[in-house]
Amino acid sequence: MLSSHPEILQAQYPWTSSPLIVSAPMRLIATEKLAVSVSKSTGFGFIAAGTDVSNLSTLIADAISAFKSSPVQHTPTAVLPIGVGFICWGADLATVLSVIKEAELKPAAAWLFAPKEAKDLRTWTDGIRKASDGKTKIWIQVGTVNMTVEAAKACRPDVLVIQGADAGGHGLAQSSSIISLLPECADALKEEGFGDIPLIAAGGIVDGRGVAAAVVLGASGVCMGTRFLATPEAVISEGYRQAVIAAIDGGVSTARTSLYDRLRGTVGWPAEYNGRGVLNQSFWDHEKGLDEDENMKMYEAAISLGDAGWGDRGRITTYAGTGIGLIKKVSPAGDIVQEVLSDSRKILAEANSSYRGK
Amino acid sequence: MLSSHPEILQAQYPWTSSPLIVSAPMRLIATEKLAVSVSKSTGFGFIAAGTDVSNLSTLIADAISAFKSSPVQHTPTAVLPIGVGFICWGADLATVLSVIKEAELKPAAAWLFAPKEAKDLRTWTDGIRKASDGKTKIWIQVGTVNMTVEAAKACRPDVLVIQGADAGGHGLAQSSSIISLLPECADALKEEGFGDIPLIAAGGIVDGRGVAAAVVLGASGVCMGTRFLATPEAVISEGYRQAVIAAIDGGVSTARTSLYDRLRGTVGWPAEYNGRGVLNQSFWDHEKGLDEDENMKMYEAAISLGDAGWGDRGRITTYAGTGIGLIKKVSPAGDIVQEVLSDSRKILAEANSSYRGK
Repeated sequence: MLSSHPEILQAQYPWTSSPLIVSAPMRLIATEKLAVSVSKSTGFGFIAAGTDVSNLSTLIADAISAFKSSPVQHTPTAVLPIGVGFICWGADLATVLSVIKEAELKPAAAWLFAPKEAKDLRTWTDGIRKASDGKTKIWIQVGTVNMTVEAAKACRPDVLVIQGADAGGHGLAQSSSIISLLPECADALKEEGFGDIPLIAAGGIVDGRGVAAAVVLGASGVCMGTRFLATPEAVISEGYRQAVIAAIDGGVSTARTSLYDRLRGTVGWPAEYNGRGVLNQSFWDHEKGLDEDENMKMYEAAISLGDAGWGDRGRITTYAGTGIGLIKKVSPAGDIVQEVLSDSRKILAEANSSYRGK
Repeated sequence: MLSSHPEILQAQYPWTSSPLIVSAPMRLIATEKLAVSVSKSTGFGFIAAGTDVSNLSTLIADAISAFKSSPVQHTPTAVLPIGVGFICWGADLATVLSVIKEAELKPAAAWLFAPKEAKDLRTWTDGIRKASDGKTKIWIQVGTVNMTVEAAKACRPDVLVIQGADAGGHGLAQSSSIISLLPECADALKEEGFGDIPLIAAGGIVDGRGVAAAVVLGASGVCMGTRFLATPEAVISEGYRQAVIAAIDGGVSTARTSLYDRLRGTVGWPAEYNGRGVLNQSFWDHEKGLDEDENMKMYEAAISLGDAGWGDRGRITTYAGTGIGLIKKVSPAGDIVQEVLSDSRKILAEANSSYRGK
């Protein structure tokens, strides 16, 4: 009945544990520091290329050199045990392909997200598989059942990342949480003959309970973003990190909105996407009707405050998911991987023994 | 690590199984037919008083007579193994107390939802406990961590129903799904000394996978509404039932909105609530800018069409949660209880054996 496929992922990524614990390719935040720590701890770390791939060769070179100085056991030959995340609508595919082709070690996965049009996914998939000689596996992030089935048909990806509404940062403005989305995607894939594609759940997962929930919903692993913000490895200001620790009641202290993109001058996202962030003074003032140019000026002034510009009384955009209220301290990324793995297994064992044969 | 309390619920409601499967008190829909079927099948059925308690004594009398003609094993003396749901902002407490006091069998639980002010919960709780001589247990539905802790402090309820954003019908306009809400509520309650209050998860749960997920997140049971719409026992038109079966991709085929309340002329809900329903022609026309009076006229015309007024091309309000896409057929309510119980246990066992010691 369980639709997870731990064996497929462990065969493809032999340095990893099951369920697979993935660190999200957070733009500007997830560099080789975070990715190497996660992969060394039997997880799967991603670096973020995002929309701007002009420095992709440096990003990958840095990751290769970090991996060489701190090797990950059981890595396949000529593979970098780290993935790279691309925001397809803004990233230049020709550059991506040439960098991958020339890379000494091929990234273990390319994570494709938010193409201008769904059909672009196929071009990206074919190009990357060819440029990497099949070494770079294709992960595609989706947020509806329809997107899931379409991506499977067009690309037969190696992994589908199913992102629910609770996720921090960018995602679909409208979607359900993984509680119903994951099983519905799993069933639809099975019905269409794609039941063997492993699913990674994303959105609202920050601890062993969330990991265990994802597994019983049918995922072979989880991707966490917000939780990895509270690590020494995340490249964020101390103000951001402390705002993540401080926030509670994540369903009401965060919200999905396009306001934060506008205030930061982020343009180009397809209309169906927005981002979840911590509600702060920028948001409240907007709700009260503050003129947006004025809000933008105050936003820029807040940036000059440094760490003091963050938090619920600050103004700086603090992308984070609803799980933020469960994060109480900064921990090394590798410890987080081990903790959630171990806790999720304990919880599954306890639940099984509590409810067996009742 | 698991924060669920199956033993507390089974002691209080000895006719039930663990995890507890609850049918939601859906206004006008959940009558004694649904409630008795669910409770007879080792679940916990609720009837809905809603906001209008003028016919409460009839509702309870009908439930008592249905129970007597079809008894539920292991029911405590003088107790009706069925609960009653109240929408507190609109329901007259004096009437409620006098009906409960005079009832030959006391409802096993009163489910309190959406008070005008949080402090009203205490008045309701004290009144019902007294009127029922403690036989009617107090269940309180909440949707944020703050509401959860406040309700626990004010009332020490017997059960807290934690409702996430995926739920159909009325709930908080802003909240997270249970994926992060349930664990954050469980932790906050534990920290405040209320770790022994059993939690029931609601929102997006329709099958054994959702039940298993709720359990590992820390719930002792689940409440399902949408799933029980697709039963012969639900008092809904065939058009509504078929619309539930037909809808897919629940995260995008439903949405939270206050439009449907306005079109139906439902007034009085506190500002922080709205409802999740299937997107239909009323919604699309509203999005295109159709005048609301015009929309309301077309709504009324659709009602006169009967079953043909429903569905995504219809106009009639179809409250349902994001799990709607997982519901493919009509099944007797008792079969649903047995199916999700059995599936959830199998899934927990499989997940435990798949991931143990990896």
